[in-house]
Amino acid sequence: MIDLNSDLGEGFGIWRLGDDDALLDVVTSANVACGFHAGDPSTMRRVCERAAARGVAVGAQVSYRDLAGFGRRFIDVDPRELADEVLYQIGALEACARAAGTSVTYVKPHGALYNATVHHDGQAAAVVAGVRAFGDLPVLGLPGSRLLHHAARAGLRPVREAFADRAYTPEGTLVPRREPGAVLGDADAVLARVLRLAERGELVAADGSVIEVDVDSVCVHGDTPGAVEHARVIRAALASAGVDVARFVPGATRLAE
Amino acid sequence: MIDLNSDLGEGFGIWRLGDDDALLDVVTSANVACGFHAGDPSTMRRVCERAAARGVAVGAQVSYRDLAGFGRRFIDVDPRELADEVLYQIGALEACARAAGTSVTYVKPHGALYNATVHHDGQAAAVVAGVRAFGDLPVLGLPGSRLLHHAARAGLRPVREAFADRAYTPEGTLVPRREPGAVLGDADAVLARVLRLAERGELVAADGSVIEVDVDSVCVHGDTPGAVEHARVIRAALASAGVDVARFVPGATRLAE
Amino acid sequence: MIDLNSDLGEGFGIWRLGDDDALLDVVTSANVACGFHAGDPSTMRRVCERAAARGVAVGAQVSYRDLAGFGRRFIDVDPRELADEVLYQIGALEACARAAGTSVTYVKPHGALYNATVHHDGQAAAVVAGVRAFGDLPVLGLPGSRLLHHAARAGLRPVREAFADRAYTPEGTLVPRREPGAVLGDADAVLARVLRLAERGELVAADGSVIEVDVDSVCVHGDTPGAVEHARVIRAALASAGVDVARFVPGATRLAE
Amino acid sequence: MIDLNSDLGEGFGIWRLGDDDALLDVVTSANVACGFHAGDPSTMRRVCERAAARGVAVGAQVSYRDLAGFGRRFIDVDPRELADEVLYQIGALEACARAAGTSVTYVKPHGALYNATVHHDGQAAAVVAGVRAFGDLPVLGLPGSRLLHHAARAGLRPVREAFADRAYTPEGTLVPRREPGAVLGDADAVLARVLRLAERGELVAADGSVIEVDVDSVCVHGDTPGAVEHARVIRAALASAGVDVARFVPGATRLAE
Repeated sequence: MIDLNSDLGEGFGIWRLGDDDALLDVVTSANVACGFHAGDPSTMRRVCERAAARGVAVGAQVSYRDLAGFGRRFIDVDPRELADEVLYQIGALEACARAAGTSVTYVKPHGALYNATVHHDGQAAAVVAGVRAFGDLPVLGLPGSRLLHHAARAGLRPVREAFADRAYTPEGTLVPRREPGAVLGDADAVLARVLRLAERGELVAADGSVIEVDVDSVCVHGDTPGAVEHARVIRAALASAGVDVARFVPGATRLAE
Repeated sequence: MIDLNSDLGEGFGIWRLGDDDALLDVVTSANVACGFHAGDPSTMRRVCERAAARGVAVGAQVSYRDLAGFGRRFIDVDPRELADEVLYQIGALEACARAAGTSVTYVKPHGALYNATVHHDGQAAAVVAGVRAFGDLPVLGLPGSRLLHHAARAGLRPVREAFADRAYTPEGTLVPRREPGAVLGDADAVLARVLRLAERGELVAADGSVIEVDVDSVCVHGDTPGAVEHARVIRAALASAGVDVARFVPGATRLAE
Repeated sequence: MIDLNSDLGEGFGIWRLGDDDALLDVVTSANVACGFHAGDPSTMRRVCERAAARGVAVGAQVSYRDLAGFGRRFIDVDPRELADEVLYQIGALEACARAAGTSVTYVKPHGALYNATVHHDGQAAAVVAGVRAFGDLPVLGLPGSRLLHHAARAGLRPVREAFADRAYTPEGTLVPRREPGAVLGDADAVLARVLRLAERGELVAADGSVIEVDVDSVCVHGDTPGAVEHARVIRAALASAGVDVARFVPGATRLAE
Repeated sequence: MIDLNSDLGEGFGIWRLGDDDALLDVVTSANVACGFHAGDPSTMRRVCERAAARGVAVGAQVSYRDLAGFGRRFIDVDPRELADEVLYQIGALEACARAAGTSVTYVKPHGALYNATVHHDGQAAAVVAGVRAFGDLPVLGLPGSRLLHHAARAGLRPVREAFADRAYTPEGTLVPRREPGAVLGDADAVLARVLRLAERGELVAADGSVIEVDVDSVCVHGDTPGAVEHARVIRAALASAGVDVARFVPGATRLAE
């Protein structure tokens, strides 16, 4: 059994990014942008409504405050402020989710905050503090990250994820986006990655070494051409391989048929 | 019995405005800025904590998205987007309030949105729609405003307020801030205004005409020099006159002694 | 002889809007977004470089400060502040243009500011004051608008434009975007509109009435599917009809061959 | 002979910081905020007008895009984008300066960007690239910084400065603001610091070691209580000691008498 998560609602005002509706037919968990790197209130509410209609779990994709950089630049925020910013974002999304008949069921940091909290102890603890100030929500992150370490220590459920289309270092961290080959472009390679992850708990790093990793969720992206079609193929392949694709948080998944 | 409300948490980042702590010793309801015209997450959380410690009710001071203009400029926002922006702001503050052991107990529009919703039917209905999407919270506004009309129709408690230091037109609306004499500068005049309001339900417009008005709350400002001292004097005078100063929403007011 | 202008550089950060490069092969004047409704510094500089390489004139597309609303919502800004905001935006673009070997040669308000300055005397005068504070640049606007009236009075060249794809009221103003039929969707209708404008100085309003209008420039849009191909057809048709398509401000147009 | 510089125009919208007018009577160079960490267009223009009236040199205080953090948090911006952001900010201020009858005569990074460019080669080169794209302006920075190294290499005048009220490490870099004792609070210590700098080219680090440093300018702050009075005392003491306080860039200083 595995969960498929994806970043959604990442437009802002007039600007769109990715095909939210199509992805909501594929994934089981939606990481919804909360307004700090992307996501205006109307987009947030609409994505929540559509996720609710499809039984897709809603998660808060919290970020540095950085619309201009799409949250992809490390910001050396004071941990106390970061915790409060995380709290603010979850609360804003929760209001949208409740209005849509659902609720925020987990939290996942976005972009540079995601990468920072792999190693940056202060910011990892701050994100967890922000989540805890809101409530007992599971936290999605990289296996072995400081983020999941602090989540577990704080009594929050750590949810381990792998990326379908990102290159890994032999240490199990992501190759930074700025480096060549950071994003896997080949559809077959991505598919093989996901199947191997689901069936054997293994992924192959950029240098060819094999990493053993037990994950609860796989992140698929929807912001590149062909991405949605690709995600559909992944889901179908998982089903064919007998893997149960289901949200990791309780709740009826109304995807089926 | 009357409530005293004031705008609080109106700094942003390094910038401060008014003396929140001092005002929290005077008022019974705190209209907390939610990040759209002012108010960063850390400020919001801190104000909520201090309001909770004093038994002061926390209200969401929702605004147009306009940091540069402090929410004091009318923006012709689409009503559906406005409703979602109101929902977003209330949710963000609610998370801060819960973390502080209290909760958002009412909503009051700020600045130009407050003024617009006196007459602008579409925006007044939008604010109410945003509040209702969140929950059944009372709405603070000008008696006779479209805002309170729509609140009542939607089953929300309309809370009527008057301003201690703003000049009124004979129609009972506020003289716009840009006009001379819009803000009463004389402390004695403000005090007389509040006492007459509380005791006789009357206020005197800029042209000298007397308006009969039954109010549940009086708004005092804290962003001008001497404002806090002034608010203290008002509160003491109300007490001397035998008027019970208490929050209009349920909850123990821990001000006393 | 007629100029073709279009809005360019209207992405922000990760978000894109329209196909700037393709449009720069068609138009003779580029209205470049300056960061207030769209347009980050890197996009601004890149568009200026490409405009310079093609001999396309660079104009400052100044706007209300409103990324969330793409500058399409009227904001009741104080005229003195608006003038300073216009000055700021032109200066920012001028630096990008100079670095690209060209310079800002005209100013055109964007979106709601464009519409407001048709009738709103204070804001029209403010835009002109901002332009004048920068220098003697031509101002692009609707014939008969307060904007062009104030530009002429201030000694700035008023440049009259018509829109290829917007519906007109019988009074010669634009049908607001929110109304049905505001944007002409039919390619043949748009082409007929432009040819009639260029050849006979006439355009047909939404109610069928014919408006006589002498214009220096025609605005084509590039943010809808097929828009660029459409603009190409318009340009070719103008050429076939013997109309000289050339920028209205001095400077070699290096489009040809 | 020495220059006194200070950060000015660091309010935003309704919020104020420091007493610009008073400081303009003391300093010879004004580092004017350009809108990215602080500084709205009207404030920028007003500060330029008043600087021009007093013969104070106007410099562009360029920053990371970070209103919420006042530019005091390191942001890992891509150097090409950073260069363009620097260019944008200088251009925006130049327009304000020209409208005020003066012009931007130097550039100084603000806050975290200032600190980053001491060691961060890529960002230091990016700031210099942004300045060069605008024109041949002097760059103000820490002696020995990568910033001044790149400025000199690019043919820009490096202007070395020391801080009147900041603690130094033995290596001649600033003690970070977050650490205790980062800002000298004692007026006598600050005065002694400035006199020793001007007369002997020495400053005393936090550990008591003496650093030899030849500076062209001393930065005084104006955002703390008593700061302006303090700056006045410093200026008077320098005059008494026979040090000529004058702007480092050409231009008549109309301070005198």
